[in-house]
Parts: sequence; C-alpha cells; structure tokens
Amino acid sequence: MHSVGICGSDVHYWQHGRVGDFVVKNPMVLGHEASGTVIKVGAGVAHLKPGDRVAVEPGVPRETDEFCKTGRYNLSPTIFFCATPPDDGNLCRYYKHSASYCYKLPDNVTFEEGALIEPLSVGIHACRRAGVTLGSKVFICGSGPIGLVNVIIAKMMGAAAVVVTDLSASRLQTAKEVGADFTLQVKNETPQEVATKVESLLGCMPEITVECTGVQACIQAGIYATRSGGTLVLVGLGPEMVTVPIVNAAVREVDIRGIFRYCNTWPMAISLLASRRINIQPLVTHRFPLEKALEAFETTKRGEGVKVMLKCDPTDQNP
Amino acid sequence: MHSVGICGSDVHYWQHGRVGDFVVKNPMVLGHEASGTVIKVGAGVAHLKPGDRVAVEPGVPRETDEFCKTGRYNLSPTIFFCATPPDDGNLCRYYKHSASYCYKLPDNVTFEEGALIEPLSVGIHACRRAGVTLGSKVFICGSGPIGLVNVIIAKMMGAAAVVVTDLSASRLQTAKEVGADFTLQVKNETPQEVATKVESLLGCMPEITVECTGVQACIQAGIYATRSGGTLVLVGLGPEMVTVPIVNAAVREVDIRGIFRYCNTWPMAISLLASRRINIQPLVTHRFPLEKALEAFETTKRGEGVKVMLKCDPTDQNP
Amino acid sequence: MHSVGICGSDVHYWQHGRVGDFVVKNPMVLGHEASGTVIKVGAGVAHLKPGDRVAVEPGVPRETDEFCKTGRYNLSPTIFFCATPPDDGNLCRYYKHSASYCYKLPDNVTFEEGALIEPLSVGIHACRRAGVTLGSKVFICGSGPIGLVNVIIAKMMGAAAVVVTDLSASRLQTAKEVGADFTLQVKNETPQEVATKVESLLGCMPEITVECTGVQACIQAGIYATRSGGTLVLVGLGPEMVTVPIVNAAVREVDIRGIFRYCNTWPMAISLLASRRINIQPLVTHRFPLEKALEAFETTKRGEGVKVMLKCDPTDQNP
Amino acid sequence: MHSVGICGSDVHYWQHGRVGDFVVKNPMVLGHEASGTVIKVGAGVAHLKPGDRVAVEPGVPRETDEFCKTGRYNLSPTIFFCATPPDDGNLCRYYKHSASYCYKLPDNVTFEEGALIEPLSVGIHACRRAGVTLGSKVFICGSGPIGLVNVIIAKMMGAAAVVVTDLSASRLQTAKEVGADFTLQVKNETPQEVATKVESLLGCMPEITVECTGVQACIQAGIYATRSGGTLVLVGLGPEMVTVPIVNAAVREVDIRGIFRYCNTWPMAISLLASRRINIQPLVTHRFPLEKALEAFETTKRGEGVKVMLKCDPTDQNP
Repeated sequence: MHSVGICGSDVHYWQHGRVGDFVVKNPMVLGHEASGTVIKVGAGVAHLKPGDRVAVEPGVPRETDEFCKTGRYNLSPTIFFCATPPDDGNLCRYYKHSASYCYKLPDNVTFEEGALIEPLSVGIHACRRAGVTLGSKVFICGSGPIGLVNVIIAKMMGAAAVVVTDLSASRLQTAKEVGADFTLQVKNETPQEVATKVESLLGCMPEITVECTGVQACIQAGIYATRSGGTLVLVGLGPEMVTVPIVNAAVREVDIRGIFRYCNTWPMAISLLASRRINIQPLVTHRFPLEKALEAFETTKRGEGVKVMLKCDPTDQNP
Repeated sequence: MHSVGICGSDVHYWQHGRVGDFVVKNPMVLGHEASGTVIKVGAGVAHLKPGDRVAVEPGVPRETDEFCKTGRYNLSPTIFFCATPPDDGNLCRYYKHSASYCYKLPDNVTFEEGALIEPLSVGIHACRRAGVTLGSKVFICGSGPIGLVNVIIAKMMGAAAVVVTDLSASRLQTAKEVGADFTLQVKNETPQEVATKVESLLGCMPEITVECTGVQACIQAGIYATRSGGTLVLVGLGPEMVTVPIVNAAVREVDIRGIFRYCNTWPMAISLLASRRINIQPLVTHRFPLEKALEAFETTKRGEGVKVMLKCDPTDQNP
Repeated sequence: MHSVGICGSDVHYWQHGRVGDFVVKNPMVLGHEASGTVIKVGAGVAHLKPGDRVAVEPGVPRETDEFCKTGRYNLSPTIFFCATPPDDGNLCRYYKHSASYCYKLPDNVTFEEGALIEPLSVGIHACRRAGVTLGSKVFICGSGPIGLVNVIIAKMMGAAAVVVTDLSASRLQTAKEVGADFTLQVKNETPQEVATKVESLLGCMPEITVECTGVQACIQAGIYATRSGGTLVLVGLGPEMVTVPIVNAAVREVDIRGIFRYCNTWPMAISLLASRRINIQPLVTHRFPLEKALEAFETTKRGEGVKVMLKCDPTDQNP
Repeated sequence: MHSVGICGSDVHYWQHGRVGDFVVKNPMVLGHEASGTVIKVGAGVAHLKPGDRVAVEPGVPRETDEFCKTGRYNLSPTIFFCATPPDDGNLCRYYKHSASYCYKLPDNVTFEEGALIEPLSVGIHACRRAGVTLGSKVFICGSGPIGLVNVIIAKMMGAAAVVVTDLSASRLQTAKEVGADFTLQVKNETPQEVATKVESLLGCMPEITVECTGVQACIQAGIYATRSGGTLVLVGLGPEMVTVPIVNAAVREVDIRGIFRYCNTWPMAISLLASRRINIQPLVTHRFPLEKALEAFETTKRGEGVKVMLKCDPTDQNP
C-alpha cells in the first residue's frame, strides 16, 4: 500500500468500537481510502500486472446476487467492505484485494488522488442519484469533507450555482475555495427560513438538495428548499427516526433518496482525474508515515485540516 | 355533461369548506371526475367536433411554465383545477373546458368509464412513479378507492404479486375481487411486524410500496417493508409532519416519492379501456340523477359502496 | 437436466457449423434453454440445495468487468454462453453451472416453463428496452417464436394494442392466439405502405416497433411506422449492412436500439410464471426423449410446431 | 430585436429557397438565433415587463398536444418555428413572440450570448440525449459550428475526454481552442480505421459518439467506434437513405438516437451563462448592422469565421 486516507468512520471505530449496528468484536485493521502498487496477481487476472499503480475500491460483493446483476452492488447485503467489522481494512503495508476492484492509475494521477477517489465517490454517487446536470441549481447542506466533495462534483457535472450552508464560517470559506458559488452561515434559523434564504441567494429554488449533516432540522430545510419536482439526497446520517414535513415533499413531488456508499464510480473518477480538470490534491492537508498512525488519528480526531493521509510505503512518501 | 363521479374531496369541501390550505370562500361548483358530449368547439380546435363523447381531465395549466414544458404540468403552481377553490368543477349540465384537456372516447368506452379515468389516473401516476413493471412485487397500504385503483393498475403493468393491507376485512375482500394476490388485515401490529408479514406473504420483500392512507405507522411500515433499492410512493396524505425511520430508507436506497394528482394519463387510460383488458365498471355502485345530488353526496358521506356517479344528462342516464 | 428446448441457433450450428462469427471448431454440446434439478452444490452456495428444481440462465460472465458492474452483464465480451462455441451447452443428462445463474423454480412452475424462460427473456429484454408500458401501441414485425414472445410480453406489460405482421397467415393465426390485437399479412407492400396499414389498424402510429425479422424492408417499415419520439427495437438479425431512412428516424427522434440476448430477466420471468398470469405451456408443441434428439432436431429443422422440447431425465418425461 | 445570428439554414433558404421538404413559397423573414428587448407585453404576462432583455426560443407549439404534455414539444407537428417556411423569423427590428418562449437575460449575460443560446441548444439537446455525464469519453464527428458547441457542452457536462474529427486542420484547431482533448484529421480512412484511431487516442472506446456531418461513412464510423452499451447521436443530416452496419450496432446495444432541434434548453443555458463558467462570446467572429445584412449573408456563405451576428438595434451595436 502507498497512501491511505483517514475517514471519520475510522476514528469512530477507534474511539467507540462501533458505528451504528456495526460493532468491532475482534481486532480489525482500519482504512478504506487507499491506493498502492500491485506486487502479485492471480492466474486469471489479465487487466493488471505487478508494478501497476492502483486505486482500491473497498467494497467487493461476495455473491453475484440480484443487486450485483442489476448494477447496484453496493446494496448487496453480504458485501465485503474494508474496515467495516468484521472485515479488515487496508491501512497496512501489504494487502490482498479482488483484482476486479483494483483500478489502474494513469501516470498523471498520484497515489493520493487515487486514495481520494473513495471520498470523491460519495459525492459522485450522491450527485448522480440527485440527477445533477447542466445548469442545475444545487443546495448542499453541510460543509464538511462530504459536503465539499459534493460541491466539487456538482460543479464538474455542470451545476450552474451551488449554495452551501454550515454553522462554521471557516468551513464555508473552504467551500468557497473548492467552488461553491454562495455560502450561508446558519445559526438558529427555522428550516423554512433557511429555505427562503437559499432561494434568495440562488434567485430561484434549487432543483436539488444534498443533505450532508443528518440533522433533523437540515433534512426539514432540505424538503422546504427543494423546487417542486426536484430531489433531496440524504448523505448525512443522524438519528434513526426523524420528523419531516412529508406532505410538503409528497405533494410537490420532491423525491427523497438516500445513498449507501457508492458503486460504479472509480472508472469515471479516474477518467476525470486523468483529464486534469479537477484538482483535489489540496484536500490533503496532513501526511504521516504509517509508523506515526496514532498521531495521524489524533490529528483527525481533533478535526484539523481536511484530509489526513497515511503513507504506508517507507521508500516513497510522496503524494 | 353526462356522468360525474363524487370524490372524497368533494364531500370534504361540502362538509368542511376546505381541504388543507384550499379554502372555499365563494360558492363553488363541485365535481372533477367527469365525461360528457361536445356541443361546441372554438375556431382553433381540430381534434374535436360537436357530438364527440369526451373524458375531461380536470387540471389545465394556465401558463406554459417550466413544469409544462418538461412534461410535469401537474406541478404548475397556477394550474386551473376543477373543484379546487376558487376554480369551479363540472358537476353541472353545461360546462366549458380547454379542448386540449378533453379526450375523445372510443365507441366501446362508456361515459362512466370516461369519468372513472380520473381516479384511475391517480393509480397510473403512482404506479408509474413507483416503476411498477413486469414481475414486480407490490405492497399496497390501504384498500380504499385509491388503494383499489393501484391494485388494478399495478396488475395491468405486469406486477406478479400484489399484497394489500387494511383494517377492514370487507375492504380487503374488494381488493381481492379487483385482483390483489394477497390481503393482510392489520390490527395493532408494529410497523416492523407489518413489514415482516408482507415479506412472508410475498416470499420476498416487495420492490415497491404504494402508501394510500397517510397514516404515520403505515408510512413507517412502507419504509421497513420495501426492498433495498426499491421505491415507496406516498399517495395518501395525513398530518403535515410525520416521524419516519429515514436512516433505514436512506442506507438501503429506498426512494420516497410523492405524487400530486397526475399528468399524461388520459390517453393511456383510454387506450387501455378501449382494449377491453380492464373492467372498472363494477367500481360504480350507485347512480343518481343530478337532481338528487344531495342524496348522492350523503350516500358517499356514509361511505357506502365504492363510487357514486351523478348522471347529468336528463335524456340519458345510462352508464 | 430435465427439459431443454431446441432453438433455431442450435439447428444452425448443427447444420452449418457456425452462426455469424461464431464457428464450431471442436465437438460441442448444444442446448441453452434448460431446466433441471440440483444434485450437488459448492461449499459457498447458500441459495440452492440438492433437490431444488432450477431454471438455467445460459450466460455467465467470466470477469466482473464494467458491464457486469453496471448491470449489463450480457455485453461482457468474455461471457460464457451455453452452446455458443467454444462453450458447451446443456443438452445432456448432467451439467455443471454457476449457482448464481441457476434460479429456483416454485412448485407451481413446470420444468418446461423453466426452460421456456430463455426465449421469453428475449421478449422481456426487447420490450423493456422498448419501454413498453401501460397503454402502449406496439407493432411487432414477424410472427416467428421471437415475435410471439414479444406479443405475450408486450401484453403482460400493459400494451393496449399489438399489431403483428408476417408473410404467413398461419403464423399470424398463432399471433392472434397468444394475444395479438391485430394481424397484417404482408406481401409486396413498400415499407411506407406497411407503415400506413399499421397506423390504420391501430388508429394511430405505434410508439414502439419490435423488429423480429432482420429483413431490410422490415427495418425500413419499422422506422416509417414508429411515432415521433418512439422506439424501434431490433431483435431480428439479417445482413451486416442495411440501407435505412436514417434521417426520417433522426428528425422524429425515433430511437433505434438493438438487443444482445438479455440480462436480469430470470427472476421477473419466474415471478410472472408463479403468478399464473401467463400461459406459455402451449408453446411446447413437440416432446422427445433425449435419446431421440436427432429426430427432435429434424422436426425443428422442418419448422414444425413452435417449440420442440427434449426430455433429459429418463425417469420423468413430464412437462 | 438586438442581435440575430446567421445560421447555415438561413443561407440555404436564401440561396436555394428550400431545406429538405420545407419550401419557401412566399417572401419570408429569416433569422432564428435572436435576442432583444421587451417593449410591450400582453395582459396575461407576469414574468416579463417592458425593458427586460430576453433571449428568444424560436419554436413555439401551436397546440398543447401529447408531445407538449410529455415535455417533448419540439416534436409537435404543428409547431411554429422562426424562419422555417411559412413561418417568419426574427431578423428584423420589431418582432412579436409568445412570452412563454422569451427568457429574461440576467445583467451579466450579453445579447449576443442570448442569441447564441440557439446553436448552444443543439449541443445541449444532443449531449443530453447522448447521456454525457461525469467522466464520459466522447467522440464528436465534425468540427463545424455544431461540432464545436457539442465539444463545449460535453465538457461542461463533465466529459473527461473529447476527440473531434474533421477533414480540415483549421477547424480542428478551433475544436482544440474550445476544449477538445484530442483531434484527428481524417482523409480517406475506412470507417473501421477511424474507429480504431479514435479508440487509440482515448485509450478506450468512447461511450458516446455525436455525429455532426450526416455523411454516410461518418455514421458508419460512429457505430464502429462506440463502446458496447453506448449511444450514437445523429445531429448532422445527410441523404435520406444511408447504409449502416446495423447488426454491429444492434448486437452491441449501441443505441442510435437523432435529435430534432431541442426543447427545454433555454433556462439551463441561461443559468450556465450567468454562472460565467462558459465563454462562448469568441464564437462571434463577425458583426454587421442590420442594414448590411446582404454583406453578412455573403460572409457566412463564404464560410468565413464561426458565427456572423447581425445587429438590429441602430442605437446599440454592442455585444
């Protein structure tokens, strides 16, 4: 392995031993935002050879079930997924993975960009399910790492105007830097007031809202804000039960769609990175050698920077 | 006008003077499930002529706005709609309507079938937005008139198995008669228990749930019951705010989609009726001449039968 | 194996040693319309056990490539496919197949119905790619076995009116029997004349045409006949190069879509058969024990009946 | 009117009195790429007022038929269309148009950008029907004005790599300037050779081909070049009948889709222009006052530059 990013869920497993229903019962290797170099392939592998630099898609279906056959393998209930207990992750020196879910990186794409495909994929899957297209007006709720990748991807898909909300002015500043057209710092507005402000900034109601916080008031704001016939995508996960203005959504045909991880995103992300039309390298704000993993995790835990990268190859600590 | 069905909303306006935000402030003609005979057409009308028997689509956009241009004219905010205040309905002898929203009935389709296209359209729009297709397993929550049309339409679209739930055994009996494969009388099960029973009846989780009650517990059951990657369509309208297991829906990518009336349903409904592959005439259980409208409304209010039809043409009271 | 249907391609390989680019270079077992009973499963198989009656989907991807991951595994270039050289088919007593592509048959579905899922799948895939839905008007060109399954499936998907054309009056009679609303015996009409007659029969231009002959004049008729904004699906395969009125199709936005075999059809076909809403058993007009395979092939070659079925289980020659 | 671009079809009508089946029988005003200022509105118009700067969508349906109701109004057979005989265009000082098809321009969008929405719309409609999305590899055949707008739009929709072919090196140079990643000057290659070269440049077969020449060999190349499961969009119009490798397209499920003008493109184009993410002003290479229209047409006829703009407002000849 070469570069592995630390995700909020990694920190959560480390600190709490669980994320929702997924409980760590035995020692488990963390890490699922990864890239590395092929050192050996199985006899049947034709598309990769030793020496190839690859990005690793962490979810690999165990069965070819109906979800796999219909192109939604992320929903396969028995899927293997790096660092979701009990499956080990790939924050380590050597790691074995299904060749079908390792994607060769072109020479002009760095290992770290390869590792960043994982968080980028969340944005791709969300914006794709949202139907972002040319000229879309998009409201993104929350300016954390996932909010930011949604800003980047929405713009890449042709969105004409993106407004991002957050409690934190500094996070909104980052949103601006990655391409948000408008930002809105929220405090104690009602959901309806947030919706009104979003409309006012955009000059119209957004066709699409991407909710990245999981907070009940934000989901409510997402419904009120979205234009009739539009889509609210739920990316952030909060409490199991939430109270929402469902009639408002229903009678205006605002669809509410969640996402579970992603599928079919690595190839398009690699094409995009190879085209050099997107610059995600600045998202990496910290780097630590694998030996200093503890320090890296503590940095992430403190919420410093955007993305902390662990460098697993002692002979090459470059991006 | 020839035949006009009475809808629950007609009774509600009559009794309460309002439905949600729509308030009757001035005297208003009721009725929006209608068919009649053309007696006169404007100079620019080419597809209709006096003597043509027509079904009347009650919603007519006033502006050619973005919703009309993109094929979702039902969402146009300034739409004219029969018997939604302040717009008059067509429960009367003579009525003027946009020719573009009057559809010629073939000789083998009765006036009453023409009037029934309106409730049928709710089912068509719901099943279409649900994505019902060949072999679908469908869970329909509620066996009132709207639940019943959804049973009929889902089967017509190729659904392999439809299960209907209701509190009332007699309503479930009607569901059986119109084509439901399974029925489930619910009492005080939890939403999760309902979901489990539905799965048990179908032999698998349904890809599609059509919720026709608006009751919070039913919406919850609809989420729990629907297969990952499937769709829950909200047809029934209940309280403005409901508490739902949104994370359960989101991480299984169960889409939640509402419907607002319908659009683009009359032509396909007429084709279907003309093909004689669907028999909806039995839904009409009562008929009254227009002069006895009060009696008709009281019958509907008492919840007798399925559909009460008013006969507006004194010279022809046939179906 | 229990029942294996004979397909035109089986006969073609037998007689000519090739179909298009696929050449038989070594002895090859024929047969790809099959069902049988599980006698043994691998250690990782959970959904099947010995004794289960199964239908066999003949195409099994060898690699989990982009086509598989996006739900279009039929397009995977290295797919294994029964009785497409050099891959052996399953017209034999014992046969080993990927468990993921064996589908358990419910008790109320016969082995022969299970074997017939294969030809049915061609119709399902064609009508699905055509977008057949409630109220569709459909023109099906050709009344051979594939035309017939398209009639059946189009009707099951809610088509309001289906017109079938063929040179042969007797084949059209069969089309009538399986559900065609209109038939048209063609002789030496021009493509435009055929289009006009189809429109005349339906009372409007069909939104959908399914071309099952591969004949140039029929493809031309399919373009002329299809309503603006509609779809022409090419199922029949004829000469590599054909001359077509491409501008006519283009400026009316009539999409031209081919199909290659099928994908994701077995589960929905089984649901449909289990619902007993479709009766395909009459398609089987001849049965032979496996020992009389030669006689069976000669019968098929002579074009007798619709479907010839070989019975591979000497202890059970029932449907 | 303020700015009206000259289209190839305008020149064709001027020179030949017809384009295909559309014949000029009476004197007709040319021009359909236009913008201007509102001087008067009808009583029912709420979204515009005198003084508003607007872009004019030239096609206005005369009837609210099935095509309009389903969001494909461009296919409406009785549509009014500027400068398609017998309908007059808007290359003049004063002009009356349906307010619903006049779109207000934001202050930061110029009149000429407003006029250029028309050719841009052809690219939007083509790329939308092609399904261009994030990471798409796109082959665009022909580097004339329509090829160029397709390059621009494909990139805006997230295409990762676009290759353009043409006979002319100078046209390909322009393609490079507007964003093409690769260009290929073709001479007398066979269609298969062109396909191979395109694949070689992209590193893979393109999912999408946009054919902008109408030439038979190019359509053939488009079929051979497109990846299985992809889409070939036909924008260029050539001879009525063409010979194509239809089996190659069919068995690889390469869809062939034409476009007829466009629909629902003005709002997204305006959003896009207002975002300043797209720079189309350089496409205007020549300007003439309305009085010098003849000179302008002769310039266009000689094929000079890219877009010739006529300035209709004697008091304001600015962009």
